[in-house]
Amino acid sequence: MTQQIIHAVPPVVVGVDVGGTKIAASLVDAKGRLFGHIRYPTDISGPEATLDSIAYTVNKVIHEVGISRGDVQAVGLGIPGLVDPYNGIGIASVNLNWNNVPVKEGLETRLGFPCSIENDVKAAALGETRYGAGIGKQNLVFMTIGTGVAAAVILEKKLYRGSNGMAGEIGHTVIEQSGPLCKCGGHGCLEALVSGPAIAARAAKKIQSGRPTILNNISGKRVKELTARAVFSAAARGDAVALETIKEVSQYLAIAIQFMALAYDPQVIVLGGGVPQAGKPFLDPVLLSLDRLAKESWVIRKIFTPRFVQVTKLRTDIGVLGAAALVATN
Amino acid sequence: MTQQIIHAVPPVVVGVDVGGTKIAASLVDAKGRLFGHIRYPTDISGPEATLDSIAYTVNKVIHEVGISRGDVQAVGLGIPGLVDPYNGIGIASVNLNWNNVPVKEGLETRLGFPCSIENDVKAAALGETRYGAGIGKQNLVFMTIGTGVAAAVILEKKLYRGSNGMAGEIGHTVIEQSGPLCKCGGHGCLEALVSGPAIAARAAKKIQSGRPTILNNISGKRVKELTARAVFSAAARGDAVALETIKEVSQYLAIAIQFMALAYDPQVIVLGGGVPQAGKPFLDPVLLSLDRLAKESWVIRKIFTPRFVQVTKLRTDIGVLGAAALVATN
Repeated sequence: MTQQIIHAVPPVVVGVDVGGTKIAASLVDAKGRLFGHIRYPTDISGPEATLDSIAYTVNKVIHEVGISRGDVQAVGLGIPGLVDPYNGIGIASVNLNWNNVPVKEGLETRLGFPCSIENDVKAAALGETRYGAGIGKQNLVFMTIGTGVAAAVILEKKLYRGSNGMAGEIGHTVIEQSGPLCKCGGHGCLEALVSGPAIAARAAKKIQSGRPTILNNISGKRVKELTARAVFSAAARGDAVALETIKEVSQYLAIAIQFMALAYDPQVIVLGGGVPQAGKPFLDPVLLSLDRLAKESWVIRKIFTPRFVQVTKLRTDIGVLGAAALVATN
Repeated sequence: MTQQIIHAVPPVVVGVDVGGTKIAASLVDAKGRLFGHIRYPTDISGPEATLDSIAYTVNKVIHEVGISRGDVQAVGLGIPGLVDPYNGIGIASVNLNWNNVPVKEGLETRLGFPCSIENDVKAAALGETRYGAGIGKQNLVFMTIGTGVAAAVILEKKLYRGSNGMAGEIGHTVIEQSGPLCKCGGHGCLEALVSGPAIAARAAKKIQSGRPTILNNISGKRVKELTARAVFSAAARGDAVALETIKEVSQYLAIAIQFMALAYDPQVIVLGGGVPQAGKPFLDPVLLSLDRLAKESWVIRKIFTPRFVQVTKLRTDIGVLGAAALVATN
């Protein structure tokens, strides 16, 4: 364990990715290298219990790596939902079941380190800028596609939050007016079309119409238990229903990506979250859809490059790296 | 004429709105008041001839107002198409029929004043920020809906141009995958759905299907000569075909407005260009569509206020005021 510390270049910060089911924490040194890798269940029985479980995870990773507490400069935390980063308040989070929780104050009291918080997607965009595809770039759009769908934007190397901290909340933009009902009450929202559950639901509908598919075998007995991951696996094996599902989803996602490209004119668009982790079976059809849009339209060809769309190479570390980016200095 | 000058607070700048058919120029004083109002045909027979006609218009408005040339601080020009404002180059403009024209240099030689150029929509956004709905605001989205459709964005009181000067070029985002063919080659682009010609074409299609309407009388004999203005007039008189056309168009425009609202989280969205000049028959259905989106979705209700959408109050002066804002100081 002390072997790891030898390579860490102080100052070290702690990056904490707070999710609704688990808390992930690592130490990150000045070179962006990760040390320690703690996963601990999130206690969402109440705000104090949640803060306790976060503090426990932070202390645990410091102890595991064996670094002196004096070498830890600060703790950064990426939190789902609406966050007030200036006052360190968790304003609203469905996943954590909290409202107006003084997260910064509660953790600084518990830990004795300076703590900074930010919405997890916004933190990820900062992480991508500091440690990933955004290195050396001014303008970056980060889109997360998982259970939810949202974007965060880096302009001139700084996080752009908008007038109310809502910039990039594109999960509920309407991509298909006659599209499926979204859990928000709207119809054809981006999230209702391309999120993990939306992909599974789209495939399930095709299965229920009686079409032949290997998806039944992959997903087990119940259509309800189908996951986006199973759909991508089936597509990789050439299953027609899965391929059709993914083609449709990719077209919707391509439209949203193109919109963000035209709205923000970034140098790179990075896709993160659970769904893009499927890799090639995810990305190839999206790039194909983007190419098709560009082939059709000479305007799009002129002002838009599908090639600048990529899946995050920081993989599952993007959460802790994003959180670390909140407090990293150099 | 000299009476006007008495009220002008130096320094005075010249705002020039360069269009494909006419050049508009006014003097603008430090208080944002306009003096003189020259309209002159644009000579698009060649770049030098175009610059000559611009210089002529500038000299004419200075002469008309009767102000001393020494009191003119600078000339700002809003130009359609792609512009390099840093080097003063008109890179590409279909309307002006030019490529890589050194506009700044050509005009400074002709006029003897410092000249600044910018894309006309971006200039209009700056004009709105300095003289209109953006006063006292940090973040503003300006959308123009006319023959073309585009947006420009002010963030933290500054024009955000994007990595290639293309930020806000949303005219060719896909709003309806199965929508009409756009002149860019794409299908269902915003511009193919809500531009002036698109509104007229949508109404024309309904007329050709044989439905009863007063639009035939309003527009004269030929369906091809139908204008968006005629459609709004007919709608104001309760014509069912016109009302249906505008309702559909408003839904598409509302989706694009909502997308820009969620992408940028601005404090105000200002609509300019020829189409919004129809006034209430234009704006009311758009606000209704936005309200409907907000009523359906609790997420949208929480993070989006249709009330912050408005039509520019600078009316047709937005062009010259935007151009003036490029060079105005104080």
